[in-house]
Amino acid sequence: MAERERDPARTRRTVLDAAARLVASKGAGVSIDAIAREAGVSKGGVLHHFQSRDGLILAVAEDLLEQFHQAVQAAVEPTDRAEGRLLRGYVRASFNEVFEEASPAEQVALVAAVVKVPGVAEVMRKDKTRWQAYFADDGLDPQRVTLILRATDGAAIAGLYEGGHTHTELAQTRDLLLALTRETGPMH
Amino acid sequence: MAERERDPARTRRTVLDAAARLVASKGAGVSIDAIAREAGVSKGGVLHHFQSRDGLILAVAEDLLEQFHQAVQAAVEPTDRAEGRLLRGYVRASFNEVFEEASPAEQVALVAAVVKVPGVAEVMRKDKTRWQAYFADDGLDPQRVTLILRATDGAAIAGLYEGGHTHTELAQTRDLLLALTRETGPMH
Repeated sequence: MAERERDPARTRRTVLDAAARLVASKGAGVSIDAIAREAGVSKGGVLHHFQSRDGLILAVAEDLLEQFHQAVQAAVEPTDRAEGRLLRGYVRASFNEVFEEASPAEQVALVAAVVKVPGVAEVMRKDKTRWQAYFADDGLDPQRVTLILRATDGAAIAGLYEGGHTHTELAQTRDLLLALTRETGPMH
Repeated sequence: MAERERDPARTRRTVLDAAARLVASKGAGVSIDAIAREAGVSKGGVLHHFQSRDGLILAVAEDLLEQFHQAVQAAVEPTDRAEGRLLRGYVRASFNEVFEEASPAEQVALVAAVVKVPGVAEVMRKDKTRWQAYFADDGLDPQRVTLILRATDGAAIAGLYEGGHTHTELAQTRDLLLALTRETGPMH
């Protein structure tokens, strides 16, 4: 433990991951003590990095949004120069997350829990504005972008509403949405 | 209280509504005692109707699905005889729910909580099959139906991911989706 706390960036990462896991499974009411135990870090170590429980939850939210930006960038094909390249990265990254998730219920519970913490909704609104600016430069009609984004979010949550989903169904929906990013005008 | 318990259908309704409210705000771990208190019904009265806590949560899930079927039927315009009439009802009913919700986080937390209870996922899968059968008779290409359903679910959850949404944004997305139910072939 002492070893781990000598590397601040690594301690921070360990605490953020532990907090996200615990909030997903137990809700936003989880204590600093429980998070410290899960991370294998002292309570003092957690508070050194994040000041308060709400400060830590806010950092978890910012970290999840940032991780998703990075996942989208990683999912954009380097050789893809056509309109809609960013949206294709977004669709691929979103479905990758769903494929990897053990439980869509826990992911949604995580978001539902953190959004109540002061500052989180504001961070989410800023992130939405950031995505809008990026998509404005992606070359597709805004109506098409909105529909594909909404359908992507809906496909990610469908497994929760429908009592599970098969890999085949998900992959079909993903490929359908990717195909729709290949046209640029409004969808009809 | 005694008065209320003389009307079994009304007691059942009161308990289901109280259970849905409590599970949404406090999670699936909520006790029969707490639900009985919230409903203003004796614990014996609750157990008379639902046998067990899990039995009650399963009944809440079945009731929510049934209420949504009724809301969709009510949102189908009686004079609408064109292809896609059921899907238009579905889109309208879904957005009505979002407009009426105090908190999308609580609605999603409710689903995430109940889906862990034995039997609920199975009930949801059967309900999905029921919708598929209905939409097969609605006259639209299945690809179009899937996209519009996914985008509708995504729009309902977007307020959670984006730190809130305005009535104007929601109404625009609803009207866009309704317009897309007016064509019958695959979307492109």
